[in-house]
Amino acid sequence: MKQHCYALELLVRDYECDMQGIVNNAVYQNYLEHARHEYLKSQGVDFAELAREQVNLVVLRAELDYRQSLRSGDRFQVTVRLEQVSRLRFAFCQEIYRLPDRAIVLQGKITGTALGPNGRPCQSEGISALFHRVEFRSR
Amino acid sequence: MKQHCYALELLVRDYECDMQGIVNNAVYQNYLEHARHEYLKSQGVDFAELAREQVNLVVLRAELDYRQSLRSGDRFQVTVRLEQVSRLRFAFCQEIYRLPDRAIVLQGKITGTALGPNGRPCQSEGISALFHRVEFRSR
Amino acid sequence: MKQHCYALELLVRDYECDMQGIVNNAVYQNYLEHARHEYLKSQGVDFAELAREQVNLVVLRAELDYRQSLRSGDRFQVTVRLEQVSRLRFAFCQEIYRLPDRAIVLQGKITGTALGPNGRPCQSEGISALFHRVEFRSR
Amino acid sequence: MKQHCYALELLVRDYECDMQGIVNNAVYQNYLEHARHEYLKSQGVDFAELAREQVNLVVLRAELDYRQSLRSGDRFQVTVRLEQVSRLRFAFCQEIYRLPDRAIVLQGKITGTALGPNGRPCQSEGISALFHRVEFRSR
Repeated sequence: MKQHCYALELLVRDYECDMQGIVNNAVYQNYLEHARHEYLKSQGVDFAELAREQVNLVVLRAELDYRQSLRSGDRFQVTVRLEQVSRLRFAFCQEIYRLPDRAIVLQGKITGTALGPNGRPCQSEGISALFHRVEFRSR
Repeated sequence: MKQHCYALELLVRDYECDMQGIVNNAVYQNYLEHARHEYLKSQGVDFAELAREQVNLVVLRAELDYRQSLRSGDRFQVTVRLEQVSRLRFAFCQEIYRLPDRAIVLQGKITGTALGPNGRPCQSEGISALFHRVEFRSR
Repeated sequence: MKQHCYALELLVRDYECDMQGIVNNAVYQNYLEHARHEYLKSQGVDFAELAREQVNLVVLRAELDYRQSLRSGDRFQVTVRLEQVSRLRFAFCQEIYRLPDRAIVLQGKITGTALGPNGRPCQSEGISALFHRVEFRSR
Repeated sequence: MKQHCYALELLVRDYECDMQGIVNNAVYQNYLEHARHEYLKSQGVDFAELAREQVNLVVLRAELDYRQSLRSGDRFQVTVRLEQVSRLRFAFCQEIYRLPDRAIVLQGKITGTALGPNGRPCQSEGISALFHRVEFRSR
């Protein structure tokens, strides 16, 4: 059963819109990233702290389906649902909904991993602990 | 036979790097977009002019495979190859290579369409003419 | 007596930080612009609507004093106080404070004007009405 | 006698334009920063390398006079002239000119300093050596 672990509400900022008067394509990746990092932080995993310890969470693949455009003044919600893909890979299933009508704006799947100080995929303790909690909750 | 229609050479700018010291994920979409627009302009299709005439070229789907990170000071090449997907849809197959070693950095496929003044998909004259030329060339 | 007309609370997003681990200089201008536009909207002046009517609010001069850096995870407040400089020019005195300690992060003064459809400075009705209200309130 | 030490030629990218169809105000700071960093690198001072050694070049004050807007497709030149302000402070006098007509787009003065690992202003060896060379040249 589909269940959103986390949702963040944001507002379009005018500088995020391009000459077509709509939010520029690349900006949605910013929205998605910000929601992922806020979700991780709410679960005790701090992207910035990991980066300082030279554990880098990186994106391996992004699939983004653009359904509708956001415009100046639009409020929207970004959702985050985490899935374990393999021992070292995880995926974030994310959606963006315009508010208040909840029209779907974007669906995305972001696959990532953690790279250790040597630049190789590693198991981040924080992420592993997070998976344990997520699994436990979904039983 | 794979054949790149267009290639643009760029340089990483320091403000494009994030706290991990690497180019932020979303920035690659900027690179890809800039190369697409330069390619289109070289073929007589001006994104800005179309926008002023209320014909908006929009992205429907983006698939991005991140192979390696670019860093401060890196030079790189962005390639563009156009494909017609259906009467109203087109796809840009794009790659980013680090220079001078040509290590693959990112592979992407960006599917788009043109929306007319009424917000519905339409056949843009410039794009159609471009497909004729591309087809002709590939025979 | 100094009196802040408007204040907006925001959160640093990780993609706004650069390789030094601090918010990049240019990003503060984004914060200031967003707060100005939200302030104007709260007063019935919509930047996007004006742009569609070809009345462009533009910045003529920006003075920015950087006192301290914001970092990943920081909450902050952006203030806006409007001043009429001349018949056609207005200035926004703005500050950014880190929260909760209210350490001053940035002080800025942004001078602007409205350009009409012919590209020349003009009196925007909305802005003029806003000045009347602001003056009235400050008596 | 006014003399530009360094000039960089760039092209407006469409994603840098906002809904008014002109380059967004904050983006000019990106242009100025990129030109400063390229200038410094041409003089043997690498911003990224310094950041890794925890010597952070930071902006203390920015004064920006916007004379004219850049638009989609515009080519432009960013100039950099370095001045020593005090033992620990330096200023970059910068201009942006549209090409090929050399219309002035922006004049800026960016004052900065180097912060050492302890977060306090320090004399960066690279910058000091640079001042010696600059002074020598200007005699």
